[in-house]
Amino acid sequence: MYKLRLTYCLLIASGWLCAQNNNVRLVSPDIQADNSVVFRVKAPGASSVQVVGTWAIDFKPVSMAKKDSDIYEVKIGPLPSDMYEYRFILDSALMLDPNNNAVTRDGSIVENRLLIPGKLGDLIAAQNVPHGNVTAVWYSSPTIGKERRMFVYTPPGYEKGKDKYPVLYLLHGAGGDEEGWISRGRANYIIDNLIASKQAVPMIVVITNGNPDAVSAPLDKPLNTNTKELPGIGSMASGRFEESLVKDVVPYIEQNYRVIADADHRALSGFSMGGYQTQNITNNNPGMFNYIGVMSMGLFSSFGNNNSNYNKEKHVAQLKALMATKPKFYWIGIGKNDFLFGTVTKLRELYDEIGFKYVYRESEGSHTWGVWRLYLTELAPKFFR
Amino acid sequence: MYKLRLTYCLLIASGWLCAQNNNVRLVSPDIQADNSVVFRVKAPGASSVQVVGTWAIDFKPVSMAKKDSDIYEVKIGPLPSDMYEYRFILDSALMLDPNNNAVTRDGSIVENRLLIPGKLGDLIAAQNVPHGNVTAVWYSSPTIGKERRMFVYTPPGYEKGKDKYPVLYLLHGAGGDEEGWISRGRANYIIDNLIASKQAVPMIVVITNGNPDAVSAPLDKPLNTNTKELPGIGSMASGRFEESLVKDVVPYIEQNYRVIADADHRALSGFSMGGYQTQNITNNNPGMFNYIGVMSMGLFSSFGNNNSNYNKEKHVAQLKALMATKPKFYWIGIGKNDFLFGTVTKLRELYDEIGFKYVYRESEGSHTWGVWRLYLTELAPKFFR
Repeated sequence: MYKLRLTYCLLIASGWLCAQNNNVRLVSPDIQADNSVVFRVKAPGASSVQVVGTWAIDFKPVSMAKKDSDIYEVKIGPLPSDMYEYRFILDSALMLDPNNNAVTRDGSIVENRLLIPGKLGDLIAAQNVPHGNVTAVWYSSPTIGKERRMFVYTPPGYEKGKDKYPVLYLLHGAGGDEEGWISRGRANYIIDNLIASKQAVPMIVVITNGNPDAVSAPLDKPLNTNTKELPGIGSMASGRFEESLVKDVVPYIEQNYRVIADADHRALSGFSMGGYQTQNITNNNPGMFNYIGVMSMGLFSSFGNNNSNYNKEKHVAQLKALMATKPKFYWIGIGKNDFLFGTVTKLRELYDEIGFKYVYRESEGSHTWGVWRLYLTELAPKFFR
Repeated sequence: MYKLRLTYCLLIASGWLCAQNNNVRLVSPDIQADNSVVFRVKAPGASSVQVVGTWAIDFKPVSMAKKDSDIYEVKIGPLPSDMYEYRFILDSALMLDPNNNAVTRDGSIVENRLLIPGKLGDLIAAQNVPHGNVTAVWYSSPTIGKERRMFVYTPPGYEKGKDKYPVLYLLHGAGGDEEGWISRGRANYIIDNLIASKQAVPMIVVITNGNPDAVSAPLDKPLNTNTKELPGIGSMASGRFEESLVKDVVPYIEQNYRVIADADHRALSGFSMGGYQTQNITNNNPGMFNYIGVMSMGLFSSFGNNNSNYNKEKHVAQLKALMATKPKFYWIGIGKNDFLFGTVTKLRELYDEIGFKYVYRESEGSHTWGVWRLYLTELAPKFFR
């Protein structure tokens, strides 16, 4: 370890010397011309080395073979164009790829990232197009009783211009926080690319923290973690976040940014718990958002063993009130292998039963960021048209 | 792994059920009333488990003892109030603490973070004080020939107010990037706290990427890593970044933010390579910055085997030109155990020889973020007074 730290110090303080000495490093991930990927890691002392990544729908680890001098290697793919996350497993320990500084976190999952170029990967990458700025904004939430943090993406040219913009509010899943759609969802780069190619209209994107017990992502201000219960997740479905979005977040954005403040220029979308919150917010506030995208979440009552509070009569009345406001676009998307597929079937059955119109998107994939990034590339072009 | 992933899915999609089931999780790090810290990790299959952290000046790993059911535990400290980074070592593998979502990266080093409350820790934490916003800003750098990314901290009230502010430009070390002073340096929270307690005047802080080969931190836009050489570090001492700061960054900030655009309201500080760049910039541009802080870096010529280009006569002429502009504050700080301590001694000898005035700060510690955060808490109050 001392040696490892010393290398760090020399890197930090005298990287130029290392470079002049032509230090050789392992290349990993090493993306090949055919879009296969070679992973390499130096693992002295390990008896088994594997790589596990999101390219496999069952997340099955793949064994890596030992080459010379404690270096393990494996080739995966070719992979379809997309972004993937991965880690290594040395014996029982999950570890990051020490040769890949691109590290992305969602909740407690910290992984490396790789991008395979091509149609989807290029939409996710930071291309040589104008980039919107992303600001970590602190705002007051009287509803929750906290100063809280959110991210606000402003489209290229916002700072210098005078135009007013529509706003997409984008929600994350349980266990996540406001960094998810930036760190893993690549929302700002996806929107940059869609705006640059004129597939989407320029828009502001607001990314909140859906856990009312948190003020921000954990590195900025941690929850009190001195508890044996999963911190703060219990209240993520309490309805308090939804109320704060309507009463605190939307007014803050409309008072502090150049936005078009009407339903035709407000979109709301989220995945998983964020899809549940999206339903909650639009069901309880008909006429507020005219563009609605529910990703990877269906009827909450069909979700598990938590049905007792479900009131179908109330739900139907809410949906009919929402229908009466004629939202321009209501979208439901789910992956064929998502464990919530059945809840979406139940939700669609209810919507069909009462004549509630929606666009249905059934994709490949399961309950993963790969699906949610794909959905954002497909949904954003539909908003505000 | 499938099980691990399934847990993730359930957390993401149904955290509220978990919470209702009173799932028990390991608490780690578990900060005790006396500021000692208990670390815990579940490590089935490991034959040796250790924790390694920045509280130990030699970064010596500490063995963790096996408790029941594959859980390893150790108590460290009591620790002085501060921020610390740490990881676990399972056999030979460095791993993150799966129960601590606070993950911080500098260059290729990704570690968990913990904060010990008290005088210094409280200055570093996100307190219940007004927070300035932090924006990831894309700007054009004709000098380097790239669109590049930087972070801009605006003090609380900036958006709503009309005041003009002084600006601190803050530079990182070799191998790092523009995220370092945010993710690990906590610059925005340190400045928030100093402003709130009136120890520092409200200021804008601009944090750049000091590697001219990079456009941004690697998660945003990676370098081309398909090379066996350490990517991009060679040119971090080329002078191109320094030129771009003067020609591209400062003008961008002064045109796009409400700043007081004179030397009395410009400060420049950086550590390690950023301390070298700070010297380069102020030596080459006398009269541009009247507040200068050189952290953990001395005379470049005394650094190692790279002396051939050093020209003492030129250096002295530059310093005399800088002296003639009467900078209000020139500061040099170094940790007693820093491997660059000798270079600072040499720099001071030169400054003393020619009568160049500076404030000298010799602290405990080595070449680590703990020292640089401490220096920022001490330096920011001296700027713009």
